[in-house]
Amino acid sequence: MQEAVFKIHGISELKLKELIEPLALSSAVKISIRAHFPDLALRLTAIPESGESKQFTSLRDQISILLHDFIYAESNVPLEEVVGSLLNEKKLTLALAESCTGGLIAHRITRIAGSSAYFVGGSVSYSNREKIRALGVNQTTLEKFGAVSRETALEMSQGILERTGASIALSVTGIAGPTGGSSEKPVGTVWVSIASATCHDAKLLHLGHLTNREQIIQATSQAALNWLRQSLLEL
Amino acid sequence: MQEAVFKIHGISELKLKELIEPLALSSAVKISIRAHFPDLALRLTAIPESGESKQFTSLRDQISILLHDFIYAESNVPLEEVVGSLLNEKKLTLALAESCTGGLIAHRITRIAGSSAYFVGGSVSYSNREKIRALGVNQTTLEKFGAVSRETALEMSQGILERTGASIALSVTGIAGPTGGSSEKPVGTVWVSIASATCHDAKLLHLGHLTNREQIIQATSQAALNWLRQSLLEL
Repeated sequence: MQEAVFKIHGISELKLKELIEPLALSSAVKISIRAHFPDLALRLTAIPESGESKQFTSLRDQISILLHDFIYAESNVPLEEVVGSLLNEKKLTLALAESCTGGLIAHRITRIAGSSAYFVGGSVSYSNREKIRALGVNQTTLEKFGAVSRETALEMSQGILERTGASIALSVTGIAGPTGGSSEKPVGTVWVSIASATCHDAKLLHLGHLTNREQIIQATSQAALNWLRQSLLEL
Repeated sequence: MQEAVFKIHGISELKLKELIEPLALSSAVKISIRAHFPDLALRLTAIPESGESKQFTSLRDQISILLHDFIYAESNVPLEEVVGSLLNEKKLTLALAESCTGGLIAHRITRIAGSSAYFVGGSVSYSNREKIRALGVNQTTLEKFGAVSRETALEMSQGILERTGASIALSVTGIAGPTGGSSEKPVGTVWVSIASATCHDAKLLHLGHLTNREQIIQATSQAALNWLRQSLLEL
């Protein structure tokens, strides 16, 4: 059966539908979207299913170009497997420092068989005390900028990088809710940071539009892993 | 609607069906089993659904006694919420040191809103180097007994307990597979340990009958959380 799968990150299911709507569909190709939050996939199937049609190839190429910025895989693999393959290929090791995701990113990374080849470990630094103790975040940083801040995220990624000796480190700190938000930092405010020998940066996510704690945690893990994937491509 | 839910751990769905089979069911009570691995629940509903029947009450009490050793909750709550409530009630704090579960237990604990009140954090010590660095496991323990051993599990729980200052610590180290097993320690061999000021113990799990890595990781998290729950009841 001729089929193509595109795994998508960075747009909603609705936006994805809008983007592909102008494409000239033919009766020779079936297109379907599978959304299992935060996972989003677009599947193309040639009809009859036995062979590849010209229309199929053309449409597949059009989609590949149209959605280029949002495609993290052109096969049916989870994001954590794409990240794992990149780490393997580049012979790099990963460490994590998680606060609001509480271990979910580590769990996703280690779901993949063979992850012990590139994942050294990490810290789930849920309390401020643990951020100081396990990661070396400065007490004054926490007092001045708060646990959910660019500064804390940067110190978390740098701290776990240095302590573990990994090639690259990812950190996450945010407010998953339902409580803990403020007008300045509402629920869904999340800082993600990446550190390596050549890069040290942080990114702000606004996930307050999501409906609950579980969704914020899941969406954060997806956004963080995708940024890690992009960073690995550049290493 | 009159209904009762029993959350079950420690027996299979099949064994559960066998155990409840001799019970005298009546047309006034509907009984159903929901198995979403590793979650297992038994639900009783009174018929007509509007009111409680004598048979319902009698059957509920019979089941409560019959399955006593396997029931971790008499309402529809996840195991991590039961553990969280116990920690809250007893004003205790928890730390984790996870190897083969790779952060899943921390993720489950932190899925629960308000978990920052009792969860201080932990270490995902996936490599031996991290077990030494982050938990203080002795190099000689790893060499003599291996990373998957009673001795390593005990040092992991003690190490994270001392480092975090938590009231109770849980550690896990095992072989989730598909590779890494041996005839002496096949895939599915898992050691779990608990440490507190008054207890320091370890338990061996044999999960080789499960079909894959994901199931072994999920089942380990469930068994570890259930032992933690039992230990908290005694503290």
